[in-house]
Amino acid sequence: MSNAAPRPADPEHLWSVEEHLEDILATVRPLDPIELNLLDAQGCVLVEDVTVAVSLPPFDNSSMDGYAVRVADVAGASEEFPAVLEVVGDIAAGGPGSLRVGPGQAARIMTGAPLPPGAEAVVPVEWTDGGLGGGPVTRMPAHSLAPEAAGGQVQVHRAAAARAHVRAEGSDVRAGDRALDAGTVLGPPQIALLAAIGRGTVRVRPRPRVVVLSTGSELVQPDEALADGQIYDSNSFALTACARDAGAIAYRVGAVPDDAETLRSTIEDQLVRADLMVTTGGVSVGAYDVVKEALAHVGDEDEPGGGVEFRKLAMQPGKPQGFGSVGPDHTPLLALPGNPVSSYVSFELFVRPAIRTLMGLDDVHRPRIQATLVTDTALTSPKGRRQFLRGTVADGSVRPVGGAGSHLVAALAQADALIVVPEDVESVEPGTEVEVVLLG
Amino acid sequence: MSNAAPRPADPEHLWSVEEHLEDILATVRPLDPIELNLLDAQGCVLVEDVTVAVSLPPFDNSSMDGYAVRVADVAGASEEFPAVLEVVGDIAAGGPGSLRVGPGQAARIMTGAPLPPGAEAVVPVEWTDGGLGGGPVTRMPAHSLAPEAAGGQVQVHRAAAARAHVRAEGSDVRAGDRALDAGTVLGPPQIALLAAIGRGTVRVRPRPRVVVLSTGSELVQPDEALADGQIYDSNSFALTACARDAGAIAYRVGAVPDDAETLRSTIEDQLVRADLMVTTGGVSVGAYDVVKEALAHVGDEDEPGGGVEFRKLAMQPGKPQGFGSVGPDHTPLLALPGNPVSSYVSFELFVRPAIRTLMGLDDVHRPRIQATLVTDTALTSPKGRRQFLRGTVADGSVRPVGGAGSHLVAALAQADALIVVPEDVESVEPGTEVEVVLLG
Repeated sequence: MSNAAPRPADPEHLWSVEEHLEDILATVRPLDPIELNLLDAQGCVLVEDVTVAVSLPPFDNSSMDGYAVRVADVAGASEEFPAVLEVVGDIAAGGPGSLRVGPGQAARIMTGAPLPPGAEAVVPVEWTDGGLGGGPVTRMPAHSLAPEAAGGQVQVHRAAAARAHVRAEGSDVRAGDRALDAGTVLGPPQIALLAAIGRGTVRVRPRPRVVVLSTGSELVQPDEALADGQIYDSNSFALTACARDAGAIAYRVGAVPDDAETLRSTIEDQLVRADLMVTTGGVSVGAYDVVKEALAHVGDEDEPGGGVEFRKLAMQPGKPQGFGSVGPDHTPLLALPGNPVSSYVSFELFVRPAIRTLMGLDDVHRPRIQATLVTDTALTSPKGRRQFLRGTVADGSVRPVGGAGSHLVAALAQADALIVVPEDVESVEPGTEVEVVLLG
Repeated sequence: MSNAAPRPADPEHLWSVEEHLEDILATVRPLDPIELNLLDAQGCVLVEDVTVAVSLPPFDNSSMDGYAVRVADVAGASEEFPAVLEVVGDIAAGGPGSLRVGPGQAARIMTGAPLPPGAEAVVPVEWTDGGLGGGPVTRMPAHSLAPEAAGGQVQVHRAAAARAHVRAEGSDVRAGDRALDAGTVLGPPQIALLAAIGRGTVRVRPRPRVVVLSTGSELVQPDEALADGQIYDSNSFALTACARDAGAIAYRVGAVPDDAETLRSTIEDQLVRADLMVTTGGVSVGAYDVVKEALAHVGDEDEPGGGVEFRKLAMQPGKPQGFGSVGPDHTPLLALPGNPVSSYVSFELFVRPAIRTLMGLDDVHRPRIQATLVTDTALTSPKGRRQFLRGTVADGSVRPVGGAGSHLVAALAQADALIVVPEDVESVEPGTEVEVVLLG
């Protein structure tokens, strides 16, 4: 994490969504690259330009199961007047390559096996009698069952042009070619190419390790009994799932009670496995807002960038937010509000881009579209706040689900989108085009 | 895996893509459900209807940091003529709930804390003097620093309607409500809801365990040196990545040489961790096609559904395919061709739907769209074969990348779509609308 960007000094400053996001993205830096085994690098961003060391294919080889022949020997061949060739042996893929095809000869060759010296083309087995002396065959007998078919004679029923059914050395990629550029995200086809050119490891930015902890003395783990005034901890589960969904390796820490010292020591303890720390709850204006209490003053003034700043955002839900860094490595920390919907929306808007920035991805945000609002009555929204309402999108339309309450997690589970109502809009009529953030 | 569907008896029958796919989907059955911890169930399909056991929220609670009051006590209050109330103590979230608010009294209350008996509404701290005797405040002092603020007097500057800033018990979901239906895929918001209603485990179909093995005596692991006639094994890496991408837990087995006994014993050995087995290579018409040799005859005639059938498909790439089951549990096995592009395309068309069927998902296929072909010259395609060409999609257009060769893995790494050319089409002019399979 680099030094923090200059921030508004007024603690009562109402931050816009963009200002807060810009502060985060100006501060969080992609993780240092490491060398990873190919399959461990799936979904990661390549940081090196990968050059082909050995051409692909590395040698001329057959694209068919058939016979390697000399063109002149099969010129004019037909089923009625076949070319009859002496079979000098089998060339299996990966087998030793000592055979040579002379005039009047053929080698039985398998797909992928190297074209032997002397041969100029391959005729598929279907163009031959397969050595059986009859009409065209559809396949070769297994060598283990009929070893004699690797010798004797073969009748070829069709002519072949030079290089027919031969894959040329380097016809896929040549030694020295650029296989993949730095910045490429490694999906299955890119992994295929890297393996094919012999790369067992690659240099990528690793998946960030994200530690998620919820705070609140009222929180009980699911499956436990609730006492009076208690509720179940859902944020630590939801945000751990969100962090994985964003590409991170996520660690869920159980809920921490509202005690500043316990929270500080828990965070300190977890730092060793955190590239990013996410907390929920304790960031508002109450007397027991422990995250604020524990983290607002940890910044070492001699080390710029340390410390967490708590601020109010011009958004709903998600008004109170904290952002900064903790620990000797200035590990970035996002402190989200505790209401389940607030923390979820805050994660999607701020934490997901931070995670994807750590990964080195270019595309850090959820996609957004315009959609037509379908609703019976106008949506209302507080003036001066950007509101994010839950909705479902289909065929260019979006319908709100549930109310605006930031505790309404049931409706959230039905939603696949967030409807954005800008700060200066207090009412949105049915049929209006609205901006929509697509989730998942 | 249920018994195999009836299959065409003619071994030379040319199967359509649909026939092969239907055979697979008619045979593969969703995995039996198991009870999993919530975070282990991410991305899985719920098999139970989940009912709410305890209402959410479980009790009336405050949506703000402020003071719990009686409505009559604050009627007509203003900054000029504030209501002055006796503060009887703090109600923190999760704390013991012994306080009662009588006439002329208020309790300082935190977001999420239970509304105390006697109180009818909450006034936000910003509508009060916070007990300091001055104008409106923006926050409460931390209790740990100013414990005296939990007593004394508070001046309230605004009236509050009954139930103002109170979240009613059950306003999110009520005990007995259906929280989620069987068949729901568990993403972060669904995990949030399940945790919130106290469900620590859920009954879902697990992620299938897919064992991927490549065959070929020519195959060398990446980072090793290539001898004459050898190439790098890329299929086992690519398809392991593909299987994960489809939602499976994938195990990559190193390349197996072209020896039927070794292959049989490797498969037997791996069965213990396989819900689905995928092989590449050895399925064509050559004399060393070991998969065919090893598996074509393993079916026990007393147990219908056992055995792997090898067939030709009317498609390019991907003509030779095998499908059936192996082992005492009739573990489904898909035997794909060995060319990298053939195996990749075959995976996307046949293995991915099989994996997603095992997961119990409704939506098992890659999405398809119509796009306009952008190319300099017409595409050609063999008659009677459905061709799948690699392409890139943008803004409703698709451009082919690379050639049709099934060994061209470099072009595959540039593609994000497959262009479908139907069986009866031999040439596609630029500007034609074509069907496109969107990858990844």
